[in-house]
Amino acid sequence: MPNDLSIYKRRESEARSYCRSFPTSFNRAKGSEMWDVDGNRYIDFLAGCSSLNYGHNDRDMQAALIEHIQADGITHGLDMHTETKQAFLTAFEDIILKPRNMDYKVMMTGPTGTNAVEAAMKLARKVTGRTNILTFTNGFHGMTMGALAATGNAGKRNGGGMPLAGTTHMPFEGAFGPDVDSLSLIEQMLDNPSSGIDAPAAFLIEPVQGEGGLNAASTEFMQGLARLAKKHGALLIADDIQAGCGRTGTFFSFEEMGIEPDLIPLAKSFSGMGLPFAALLVKPEHDIWKPAEHNGTFRGNTHAFVTARIALEKFWKDDAFSRELAEKSVQLTSGLQAVADEIEGATLKGRGLMQGVDVGGGELAGAICARCFEKGLIIETSGAHDEVVKVLAPLTTSSALLREGLGILLEAVREVNTTKMAAE
Amino acid sequence: MPNDLSIYKRRESEARSYCRSFPTSFNRAKGSEMWDVDGNRYIDFLAGCSSLNYGHNDRDMQAALIEHIQADGITHGLDMHTETKQAFLTAFEDIILKPRNMDYKVMMTGPTGTNAVEAAMKLARKVTGRTNILTFTNGFHGMTMGALAATGNAGKRNGGGMPLAGTTHMPFEGAFGPDVDSLSLIEQMLDNPSSGIDAPAAFLIEPVQGEGGLNAASTEFMQGLARLAKKHGALLIADDIQAGCGRTGTFFSFEEMGIEPDLIPLAKSFSGMGLPFAALLVKPEHDIWKPAEHNGTFRGNTHAFVTARIALEKFWKDDAFSRELAEKSVQLTSGLQAVADEIEGATLKGRGLMQGVDVGGGELAGAICARCFEKGLIIETSGAHDEVVKVLAPLTTSSALLREGLGILLEAVREVNTTKMAAE
Amino acid sequence: MPNDLSIYKRRESEARSYCRSFPTSFNRAKGSEMWDVDGNRYIDFLAGCSSLNYGHNDRDMQAALIEHIQADGITHGLDMHTETKQAFLTAFEDIILKPRNMDYKVMMTGPTGTNAVEAAMKLARKVTGRTNILTFTNGFHGMTMGALAATGNAGKRNGGGMPLAGTTHMPFEGAFGPDVDSLSLIEQMLDNPSSGIDAPAAFLIEPVQGEGGLNAASTEFMQGLARLAKKHGALLIADDIQAGCGRTGTFFSFEEMGIEPDLIPLAKSFSGMGLPFAALLVKPEHDIWKPAEHNGTFRGNTHAFVTARIALEKFWKDDAFSRELAEKSVQLTSGLQAVADEIEGATLKGRGLMQGVDVGGGELAGAICARCFEKGLIIETSGAHDEVVKVLAPLTTSSALLREGLGILLEAVREVNTTKMAAE
Amino acid sequence: MPNDLSIYKRRESEARSYCRSFPTSFNRAKGSEMWDVDGNRYIDFLAGCSSLNYGHNDRDMQAALIEHIQADGITHGLDMHTETKQAFLTAFEDIILKPRNMDYKVMMTGPTGTNAVEAAMKLARKVTGRTNILTFTNGFHGMTMGALAATGNAGKRNGGGMPLAGTTHMPFEGAFGPDVDSLSLIEQMLDNPSSGIDAPAAFLIEPVQGEGGLNAASTEFMQGLARLAKKHGALLIADDIQAGCGRTGTFFSFEEMGIEPDLIPLAKSFSGMGLPFAALLVKPEHDIWKPAEHNGTFRGNTHAFVTARIALEKFWKDDAFSRELAEKSVQLTSGLQAVADEIEGATLKGRGLMQGVDVGGGELAGAICARCFEKGLIIETSGAHDEVVKVLAPLTTSSALLREGLGILLEAVREVNTTKMAAE
Repeated sequence: MPNDLSIYKRRESEARSYCRSFPTSFNRAKGSEMWDVDGNRYIDFLAGCSSLNYGHNDRDMQAALIEHIQADGITHGLDMHTETKQAFLTAFEDIILKPRNMDYKVMMTGPTGTNAVEAAMKLARKVTGRTNILTFTNGFHGMTMGALAATGNAGKRNGGGMPLAGTTHMPFEGAFGPDVDSLSLIEQMLDNPSSGIDAPAAFLIEPVQGEGGLNAASTEFMQGLARLAKKHGALLIADDIQAGCGRTGTFFSFEEMGIEPDLIPLAKSFSGMGLPFAALLVKPEHDIWKPAEHNGTFRGNTHAFVTARIALEKFWKDDAFSRELAEKSVQLTSGLQAVADEIEGATLKGRGLMQGVDVGGGELAGAICARCFEKGLIIETSGAHDEVVKVLAPLTTSSALLREGLGILLEAVREVNTTKMAAE
Repeated sequence: MPNDLSIYKRRESEARSYCRSFPTSFNRAKGSEMWDVDGNRYIDFLAGCSSLNYGHNDRDMQAALIEHIQADGITHGLDMHTETKQAFLTAFEDIILKPRNMDYKVMMTGPTGTNAVEAAMKLARKVTGRTNILTFTNGFHGMTMGALAATGNAGKRNGGGMPLAGTTHMPFEGAFGPDVDSLSLIEQMLDNPSSGIDAPAAFLIEPVQGEGGLNAASTEFMQGLARLAKKHGALLIADDIQAGCGRTGTFFSFEEMGIEPDLIPLAKSFSGMGLPFAALLVKPEHDIWKPAEHNGTFRGNTHAFVTARIALEKFWKDDAFSRELAEKSVQLTSGLQAVADEIEGATLKGRGLMQGVDVGGGELAGAICARCFEKGLIIETSGAHDEVVKVLAPLTTSSALLREGLGILLEAVREVNTTKMAAE
Repeated sequence: MPNDLSIYKRRESEARSYCRSFPTSFNRAKGSEMWDVDGNRYIDFLAGCSSLNYGHNDRDMQAALIEHIQADGITHGLDMHTETKQAFLTAFEDIILKPRNMDYKVMMTGPTGTNAVEAAMKLARKVTGRTNILTFTNGFHGMTMGALAATGNAGKRNGGGMPLAGTTHMPFEGAFGPDVDSLSLIEQMLDNPSSGIDAPAAFLIEPVQGEGGLNAASTEFMQGLARLAKKHGALLIADDIQAGCGRTGTFFSFEEMGIEPDLIPLAKSFSGMGLPFAALLVKPEHDIWKPAEHNGTFRGNTHAFVTARIALEKFWKDDAFSRELAEKSVQLTSGLQAVADEIEGATLKGRGLMQGVDVGGGELAGAICARCFEKGLIIETSGAHDEVVKVLAPLTTSSALLREGLGILLEAVREVNTTKMAAE
Repeated sequence: MPNDLSIYKRRESEARSYCRSFPTSFNRAKGSEMWDVDGNRYIDFLAGCSSLNYGHNDRDMQAALIEHIQADGITHGLDMHTETKQAFLTAFEDIILKPRNMDYKVMMTGPTGTNAVEAAMKLARKVTGRTNILTFTNGFHGMTMGALAATGNAGKRNGGGMPLAGTTHMPFEGAFGPDVDSLSLIEQMLDNPSSGIDAPAAFLIEPVQGEGGLNAASTEFMQGLARLAKKHGALLIADDIQAGCGRTGTFFSFEEMGIEPDLIPLAKSFSGMGLPFAALLVKPEHDIWKPAEHNGTFRGNTHAFVTARIALEKFWKDDAFSRELAEKSVQLTSGLQAVADEIEGATLKGRGLMQGVDVGGGELAGAICARCFEKGLIIETSGAHDEVVKVLAPLTTSSALLREGLGILLEAVREVNTTKMAAE
């Protein structure tokens, strides 16, 4: 089949987006590389927006999934008991929960991040008898009406077509610059009975904001929120959909912060292989759902149970992977610093394998990413003004490939700078 | 692994539901049959709530999917162009749209029915500049806050934890019994400028209500809604998530009604194999989305593109399958009539391969389904009071298996009747 | 000062309305008559939309109010105890509550009907812990956002500028014509747990709909609502703002229906003299307000306490006034029948001194009222299409004046008919 | 009638409030003094919460009102043209608007502040096509559902019984202490397209917060809001219900700030005599109401037109009154400083004749006010924690009476201090 894209114009909705940045047709992917139908090879620094933390088509996941299919294993089982689900839950308990002394129940939600977030919001309201979810500037939690109300982006919010309800947006750490303590403002608002901020059912926060510009909350900030949540009778919801599953260097992004969120939405890389899968981790005392009170057809994607279990067993049985990630983070920081040094006023954002460069504006960031793509690197922007060039390479990317990709990025920046200067 | 279910109590949320009706652990499925870990065989008259219209693990879909995986085909590609997606869209255009003279664009939404419904509601509001979506008694459209507002079930609605907004519930055909014309009531409400019913952005209706009790709207009713929609400047959204993909005997449930819905949410069996997948069909003139205005990570599940294409090519290239379904519908009606004859006041509900028996109450229906399971038949209830025993067998169920399953159902009804009489 | 109206164009908002129907400047009023600055005399069949049930400037109310002012009686006392308020409450207890065996507490709300309605809606939600107020087609309850949500009129609702929440509109008696039993529809909706109608906090109904077209609910309908409210744990709110204070022939419009509403908003004629005043009658068991939980500066208009007490003492100490009203109702019906006989298809609406003629359309009704004004009669339309010519003469209008006014109306109808025929 | 208050317990709702602070029964009032039925005299430093800026029963207003009543002047005229209304509008134009070069139209709303605020919110939404009204911490705007959403007080908000919509609460000047610039925070929130703060229809602010603790916005802050409103396409609504009508020393509280609010709700003292009356001033270009789009029975209280006109003519024809107020403000500040000096950490709040002392806590402030009442001074608290002792004496209070009242306050503070020390 030729690289003819007319079918998309004719038959796919204008809502499509990433394909506009990467105007080719892909047909093969392995590890951190993708190939298009013309045989061109690309390094993937987007990784399905962090859905492919273990790279494309991990050999072991492929093998297990093929074996499952060949054995007529369950493909779709609603939320019935299946051997596959049992094995996954057992692995999750043994490999993730127990070693971290975490006690959570797994709620299989519809296989989208937004569904897990909606389940969390509904449950927080049910547990507290309150409606107001405190969310944060630049937060991104999903497109369905409940989660959209918790999302900051004006364009996305306008897509709702009617006023969004049930949330109040609080300043994320650093939202007003380094001299204003967001946590203190939030505490003052909550302590003032005439602030107009209704008693919170929950704080809903991404420990590292993926879409919002790689803003990473500090341990102090997260601990402060945990304290405020307790003080005001609210739950703490850590949305680890993009930052979880190892992206920041540990399985959970908040793992070393000494906090225990009440609810934890997971999705994206949770299936290991990029299959649709989402879940909400719930502290047992909050698991007051009635059967089917939040239901859905695809709760639990059985193929994803297969690959998710492999991901846990292969990468998280000991701390080898985490140590590897720590090293790569250093390499990434160093590579991005070189990039930032080329751009006046540029700063580094994020942490772990979730870092980027704030280049100061969306136009420049877009030009850099477009140039990268021409040079064989898939990379995207982030931030309220699309001003951050964001690296979300698979966690399994080899040091060499990481270096190659960062090299392309550096070259692209230099070329864009040259073009810019020529134009001035 | 033994059939030990303790992990579910320990680690899965109380929200789980179907597993309570079918207390065993499944590990294999093919066509219309499932097997548990102890080797027990079950006939599946639930079919993933109509997500497995082509049966479990269709051989051709399995083969194509395995081939795709082995070739390192894209597993997750966000909404980028992929050869796989292109092939799917082309097949959908050729096999479904063109022969039916239908002109729609496909919006890949998050891979859940509720996400496709939310996208439809948002788009209808955007197109009309209005907010009020007219939905129907006993309707079921999903669990996220937008779609939940369009769902009738009180238990599900209460799960929202706060008032739901943006919808008005209208009486479905026959909601007030045979002597009250729902369509006329709706028209009078809309014609009265002081009715308090705000100008509608859309009608959102399931042509056959799956969860609501297999209520099948007539051609007259659907045409009437289409007329009212036009008259009042509203869109018509036909939610074909459960009733579509052949369930009623044709690919779309409304196909022979002479109407052209503006928006058509699809999910459940759209992937062919039970993989998470959903889409919204949009008339081109309404496709006014801005890029990424409704986005999401798993829009387009590439594995599902593979199997969905096979499903189209295998079952819908000509009308053989439809003719087969027409015959099976007759067989199903006849079998269910025999069941209904055993229960005083029982009536048949639904149409096509989406039929059931209203046995008059939820307790009886529940007892029948429980007895069926003991006898090796997986079947569930439906309806506002769970009063309908609902058959959603795979469309590919052989005549013999259909007969066997219906036979179990009949026996179960007789046994329950006997037990009841003994108790009285 | 000349009858120069330019100041209104220059300085009064376009929201002004009644002055457009009656384009002159009034400066004196007594009983059922008004005079403009040019000395023209008008019979008043509008009576401040039923705010002047005892006529303009009742001699005894004038005297009492002047005496109060001259004695430096309290004009504004917030909701402090005043001798005047005490006297009013005592009179209300003795003259209205005790003889009717009614046990209610009086909540002084802001002095507008809409404020009393909002207080009722808030209290019903507080008492039941539910949010959904069931209101009715063609209902009118006020312009502030809570009451506006309970109002049916589309134009008024659009004025809200955003979606209105917290109410569901039910069909008033006869809303779908004589063959459809609204009460039965409502009961079916409430009995169906999947109807999408959330559990009601209250029914909010005008026993006779003033703005909605003089639709008078029957005793059976009101009793049915009372029964449904009890069955479903909802309160019954009888909005007697326009129909109360004698307008239907008894002090409360529902007085002879054998029902006991939980909450009764009163306003309009409650002050006796047309002064701003409103209150909410609350069954003692529902009076769970915390102090100042619903507050406001003008709760309790002390001047109105003076005149309201006179009204009670003068008109309601025995049943003479009610008997007089019964006679006048007969006269009014008879006069309106003569009017209706002139117009093909016209029907009588309403009851007591709250009657009118549905002339079939708003254009005709408007023409009739305009002609009336030219002939010295102030009268207005009502109804979803402004199709009802509505008589709201002061209850104290003499038989002779009533006859004179009805005579003008009859003439006006004939003249309009003649003009119409000439034009055809 | 004896001072028997049992009728209130028996027949007035628990919502009553001020009467609990002042447990006696009043029957006469003149100027700045009130008398109870036992003949006790009280100095009134509450003035109907600023509704009696010209004192109780102003001689000239009494005379004009009595003359109007005796002449059978219109008492209630809906919103028809009346000689009385014409005279009022003309006086308002001549005395208030013209000398200030202000061009506004007067919208007669229901005669409560909350109704004027609701009209403003509705109109701002209509003009801008947006829904979000930005309101402020500690703001108070009314009890009906629209205005309540703009009010900060948690107790009042909870009275709503359901989530409130359509507003976002911003920090008032100084809300986070002197080191955080609220205006800058607001600007940053609005400039950030991902802040989650929807595009504003309006800013709604009290230039001096009456209920919220006498927080007075500076000229810089108000000018900043005016600038932000313009920048972001929003209207500026200055709620001058409590701070207007001379309370701060000029007719409008913002008069010397060089800003031109788009909408100005007025009520409380606008009638001059404490009669229910409210209006919304609207810049002509925003007066896009359709006739009756916001209506109501008591729009325009004709008695209030009479007294309101007298108030304008008597007090505002020249700047003598303003100069007098300036002097009294100095006296008030000085008296309150003496009070503050008695209490550790106490600070002065407010400006003009709207000043008070923040005594640090509600218990102490309550004890002081209670002691004042025992000593013959009516005075109330204000603030989120009721921590401000607030002086709202009539503007016409003589210097001698002001001194006497302040003397009582000082004594009360000393006595409470002594009691406190004794208890420690």
